[in-house]
Amino acid sequence: MIFITLEGIDGSGKTTIAKIVKEKILEKGFDVILTREPGGEEISEAIRNLILDKNNTEMTHWTEALLYIASRKQHIDKKIIPALKSGKIVICDRFMDSTTVYQGYARGIGMAEIDQVQNVVIGSAKPDLTIFFDITPKEAQIRLTSRTRSPDRLDLEDSNFHQTVYEGYQLLISDNTERIKVVDARKSVNEVVQQVEFLINEVIVERLNSKK
Amino acid sequence: MIFITLEGIDGSGKTTIAKIVKEKILEKGFDVILTREPGGEEISEAIRNLILDKNNTEMTHWTEALLYIASRKQHIDKKIIPALKSGKIVICDRFMDSTTVYQGYARGIGMAEIDQVQNVVIGSAKPDLTIFFDITPKEAQIRLTSRTRSPDRLDLEDSNFHQTVYEGYQLLISDNTERIKVVDARKSVNEVVQQVEFLINEVIVERLNSKK
Repeated sequence: MIFITLEGIDGSGKTTIAKIVKEKILEKGFDVILTREPGGEEISEAIRNLILDKNNTEMTHWTEALLYIASRKQHIDKKIIPALKSGKIVICDRFMDSTTVYQGYARGIGMAEIDQVQNVVIGSAKPDLTIFFDITPKEAQIRLTSRTRSPDRLDLEDSNFHQTVYEGYQLLISDNTERIKVVDARKSVNEVVQQVEFLINEVIVERLNSKK
Repeated sequence: MIFITLEGIDGSGKTTIAKIVKEKILEKGFDVILTREPGGEEISEAIRNLILDKNNTEMTHWTEALLYIASRKQHIDKKIIPALKSGKIVICDRFMDSTTVYQGYARGIGMAEIDQVQNVVIGSAKPDLTIFFDITPKEAQIRLTSRTRSPDRLDLEDSNFHQTVYEGYQLLISDNTERIKVVDARKSVNEVVQQVEFLINEVIVERLNSKK
């Protein structure tokens, strides 16, 4: 029914906020699922394990990008599209824009090149709304250091990389002002939840109106 | 220096012929490598294992195609391009056309869709010459039944599929008459070797002339 994706650098709080917002949408009586790649999809999971394997340091940037897109396609076809078709609201924590920004911009493949591939592969399964959780890498880093899980290959990047990712998101947003809406992720949890709820409500109302 | 790919349905004899032709090119004093995906490249190998895993029957056609392209990109960047740059002739047993035909045509994704993705990903690493080993699926099947290895997921296809693959190759050839040359793979090994040698010699001579 409605497909919403969440984007932002690590530590932007989007995962925490998403869980709260999901409950609030459920309370309003809408059927909603919250997912994130690989989404519990077995094959997507296996592909992700390849990407995150610390031994695969020889993996080229393009191969990494293609594996993300392969994993995503499986998640789309097996989970996201069936949920949308059954009338659900689907909220996905990270989606195509992460590959455009992380591999396309920060790794230097080119955002246009990644877009060309994703346009073909993803087709009509594009988000109706994308919410960007805006926080600087420095502020996000403070949040991240409080986490306890052990770092994987992708965590072992220097802070320049995170800054580049942030810049990539800014470029992407300026090219997609209709689809991508920005929330101030530095605010309190309650305030960010309110901003996100407001944006999602707008899309729901719009969709309900168009069905009349 | 020169990049040559070999295409054809399974049982067309291209692998056997390639080994003989490689030795003949070496005898002429050219530096040549014969490779095939995944090409001994560790990450390509791991990706291929995912594709061929009999348990992954839920894999979507697009995911399969993207995994092949990811594996290919790794093989290109880590093995094919370095060899070409060091002046070698590279002969690759199956390459981009296999994905266009098997996934694009026979699996029904669309040849144009696969081409769009591969054009972006493969870029300038396109073959100078592609040799198609022409043999009907029926004739090839007779050769294949004499093989002893145990069948993987991809072997467990019905004969309609092989016929569709053959049709896909015919379409591809008619759209790429400059790049793709056809040899009659039903002939004796010696005769096929001669046809292949002739085509490769033409490219070598052309390349040497253009360098004068």
